[in-house]
Amino acid sequence: MSETSSDGNIYERGLDKTPANYQPLTPLSYLDWAARVFPDKTAVIHGPHKFTWSEFDVRCRRLASALQKRGIGPGDTVSVMSPNAPAMLEAHYGVPMAGAVLNALNYRLDDETIAFILKHAETKVLITDREFSGVIRDAVAILDNPDLLIVDVDDPLANGGELIGDLTYEALLAEGDPDHVWEAPADEWQAMCLNYTSGTTGNPKGVVYHHRGGYLNALGNALVFRLGPESVYLWTLPMFHCNGWTYTWAVTSVGGTHVCLRNVDPAEIFPLIEEHKVTHMCGAPIVLNMLVHAPDDVKKTFDHTIEVATGGAAPPSTVISRMAAMGFNVTHLYGLTETYGPSTVCVFQDEWADLPLEDKAVKMSRQGVRYPTQFHQTVRDPETLDLVPEDGKTIGEIMFQSNTVMRGYLKNPDATAEAFRGGWYHTGDLAVQHPDGYIEVKDRSKDIIISGGENISSLEVEETLYKHPGVMECAVVAMPSEKWGETPVAFVTPTAAAEGTLDANELIDFCKQHMARFKAPTKVVFGPLPKTSTGKIQKFVLREKVHDVAEEKDD
Amino acid sequence: MSETSSDGNIYERGLDKTPANYQPLTPLSYLDWAARVFPDKTAVIHGPHKFTWSEFDVRCRRLASALQKRGIGPGDTVSVMSPNAPAMLEAHYGVPMAGAVLNALNYRLDDETIAFILKHAETKVLITDREFSGVIRDAVAILDNPDLLIVDVDDPLANGGELIGDLTYEALLAEGDPDHVWEAPADEWQAMCLNYTSGTTGNPKGVVYHHRGGYLNALGNALVFRLGPESVYLWTLPMFHCNGWTYTWAVTSVGGTHVCLRNVDPAEIFPLIEEHKVTHMCGAPIVLNMLVHAPDDVKKTFDHTIEVATGGAAPPSTVISRMAAMGFNVTHLYGLTETYGPSTVCVFQDEWADLPLEDKAVKMSRQGVRYPTQFHQTVRDPETLDLVPEDGKTIGEIMFQSNTVMRGYLKNPDATAEAFRGGWYHTGDLAVQHPDGYIEVKDRSKDIIISGGENISSLEVEETLYKHPGVMECAVVAMPSEKWGETPVAFVTPTAAAEGTLDANELIDFCKQHMARFKAPTKVVFGPLPKTSTGKIQKFVLREKVHDVAEEKDD
Repeated sequence: MSETSSDGNIYERGLDKTPANYQPLTPLSYLDWAARVFPDKTAVIHGPHKFTWSEFDVRCRRLASALQKRGIGPGDTVSVMSPNAPAMLEAHYGVPMAGAVLNALNYRLDDETIAFILKHAETKVLITDREFSGVIRDAVAILDNPDLLIVDVDDPLANGGELIGDLTYEALLAEGDPDHVWEAPADEWQAMCLNYTSGTTGNPKGVVYHHRGGYLNALGNALVFRLGPESVYLWTLPMFHCNGWTYTWAVTSVGGTHVCLRNVDPAEIFPLIEEHKVTHMCGAPIVLNMLVHAPDDVKKTFDHTIEVATGGAAPPSTVISRMAAMGFNVTHLYGLTETYGPSTVCVFQDEWADLPLEDKAVKMSRQGVRYPTQFHQTVRDPETLDLVPEDGKTIGEIMFQSNTVMRGYLKNPDATAEAFRGGWYHTGDLAVQHPDGYIEVKDRSKDIIISGGENISSLEVEETLYKHPGVMECAVVAMPSEKWGETPVAFVTPTAAAEGTLDANELIDFCKQHMARFKAPTKVVFGPLPKTSTGKIQKFVLREKVHDVAEEKDD
Repeated sequence: MSETSSDGNIYERGLDKTPANYQPLTPLSYLDWAARVFPDKTAVIHGPHKFTWSEFDVRCRRLASALQKRGIGPGDTVSVMSPNAPAMLEAHYGVPMAGAVLNALNYRLDDETIAFILKHAETKVLITDREFSGVIRDAVAILDNPDLLIVDVDDPLANGGELIGDLTYEALLAEGDPDHVWEAPADEWQAMCLNYTSGTTGNPKGVVYHHRGGYLNALGNALVFRLGPESVYLWTLPMFHCNGWTYTWAVTSVGGTHVCLRNVDPAEIFPLIEEHKVTHMCGAPIVLNMLVHAPDDVKKTFDHTIEVATGGAAPPSTVISRMAAMGFNVTHLYGLTETYGPSTVCVFQDEWADLPLEDKAVKMSRQGVRYPTQFHQTVRDPETLDLVPEDGKTIGEIMFQSNTVMRGYLKNPDATAEAFRGGWYHTGDLAVQHPDGYIEVKDRSKDIIISGGENISSLEVEETLYKHPGVMECAVVAMPSEKWGETPVAFVTPTAAAEGTLDANELIDFCKQHMARFKAPTKVVFGPLPKTSTGKIQKFVLREKVHDVAEEKDD
């Protein structure tokens, strides 16, 4: 009898949870399903190598079994340093199957940051691809933890590197039982993954995911992205990035096919799309830019549609149209590490189809509406938590309530409490909510430029710059101005074709013609843009640079 | 801090549930989503009437608000007697939005059974379509509960009937606040629906669904059936039947369109499919039979594919092929009231496409594999609970562990405990598990015929009979035999074309040619088949009848 039996209503008597009707939600169950329904279908492609769902399942079971035999279980962290190769995908199943927590490392990090993470996460096992042996060896030296078990992935497709660990990944798998029966977590709230955010200041924070959230966000992706058994997913998005936005599990939930990719290189991407008839892929806008600006002898145009989800920044209209011309249909998603990756999607409305390209791109570049698996998506006053009017003008902070929000930051109750204050997850992103319910990010709070008392959205200036055919990438930040308070300055990487010929004044004039004149940049600096290891442009670095140029010109 | 803070591992410290990261799963959230994302898109079509998602949402909010104003809340039952009309669909949202429990009544039930259910469910409000005023008036008289609030749905498409209640449904809606803000249930385990099973003996049992299960099974349907915003779902399946197999919520979860249908009549179905470009529908095999055997002037062939899910019995190969010829793609699902309707699906494997029709139909008629949202689907020895070998031969009982299994039977702890004994939900269906993991129902335990010590599956005999072009419907049961113990006897409804000319001996010979001779029926009886109100053939009635025919012949 339930606890409420004595005083509850008729529905609270004798209708309790039992193993028959209550089981923890976990994305691990998708692998069980795929291996059962499609045992002989190709699960994973890695260069010339292929695994069926049955083979992949056995490898994951072996990994779980081997880890357990070595004493790894709930509460233990297993870190993995790997590009988008099979071992990384297997770790997404084998590690949590052992009850442990997967910490997928950003392979662009430096040794000190990696050492910090391994120490903070109290990592027990480190699985590392040979290509990263250099930085890992240095990180391990800094860490100085003799109890750390290091497992080398000797991927035949790796480019160089050495074996530096205690045993190879294949030897570890050989220790495991191929028929290992894994147990679902005792509670779906149990920690499953640990992802460190690449903060621009301070130490990275460890975002903890639970099984429930992984299960739900993966289903949301499958539903929103219309995945099915025929789907072929190309791994252009790093799996370490929010666990590949949970596509690591979503593709499995429908029995699709994962196509691994160690290097995000158009010279590899185009042929793989053609060879495997890729149907879906994801990536930051830079990935789309790379495809659009790939050399002509590399570029291919496809007669089947490839669905591309992008996030991190809005795709400029030119990118949308140029991708479409090659066969790619771009969808804009929005989310954060704290929300298991994508949490909103710019759902395409039928009536947009007839809009002029520019207008259509404006609609499509918005962050959109919540996933069906997200609970509440709102824009609120950061202080009062009041909802902002849905007028497309009033700026507030995007806040979520959802089962697809992290448990919190590991060993950081203050940051967790701050992120969840008032019962809402505070994204830190400033946005408006349009009358049609779509949200549109206007800026991170520090990215708003205030010039002569008027707000200028750096994103709006960037969107205008992207319309110029000579602009490959750009970023706009505030430059201090005695007269105006601040003015916008643009940092621009020209396309290969425009390299050396693109003129600053031409770009400024172009902006003045295409937006309010006061919003046009007062200065343009050419060159490569500083980026975080996940490909985010580091505006704080640019802000430091503007102090140099601010001396030169102030109008 | 969590309860485990003091002794748990690092992942159990300061990472507790908050409103920001934990919200109850409820299918009600899908309506919120659809109304937000597709406010002006058609949500519901009912004859000449249409509602947008925004309008539909407002009607549901009004219903919830009006019920709450009248004191209805958690633990209260609202019963609804209605065909597949808008009020029934609205009740699927408005009633649980008020925190109450929806009890959708089978409109084919008699007055005494309805009175039993209203009393057992302690119904507070009865919403009833005018077409059923006769049986409801009688049921209410038997019930004799002066506190029951009766609400008449005065559907303009109703065929006759009277208004017998305290107020009309539209008047009730008018009492409600269109801007009513509903609250999610405090716990996703809260009761949401109550569905009475049409048992063949004894009183019906009340199956209790919770919000969590409704949410998950609807997502499973959307995923398995590939629903999307462009989906147009025709309501050929009664919404009272496992809440329309949870398609009441699944179609909403993607912003598709519901097309209502009061009467399952091919003369209405074919034109509706054509007019609204219907993409999906569900139904018992009899619905498929009706379409296949519809008069030629009613039948239409479509050049778009209509996905049809069927369950309750395996679709015979002739039905699959004849439906395909008209544009319908048949998928076989399996489930029970206790499992929110469909729980397994016969996933079509690519390699089946090249099989001869007969072999393909054999594959397709199996009950298949679990939904991705189902947790464990197994075939076990009913006594020992041991798994049966996956040999396609050894018969066991289908047992589930899943979040999409009912909470239990209302006010019936003994039946609940019996159904869940050993931690598994016992379906009572006997099946084999094939080497490819697909399950195939062989029979309800009492439907196995034992003849000369050999088991004969009545389903196998029926499948053979269905191959005869003159057979519209059939059912096979055991006839006592002194010599053999039992022999099969077939009850057959001929097609309109074969009516009066179909010969018993011809059918028996046909069976002997197409299956093991000892399995052929020894007797054929022509005529209509007795059915439950949900369209299930009542074999127990046929078993009583065989005692009459057993006197005539025994070989």
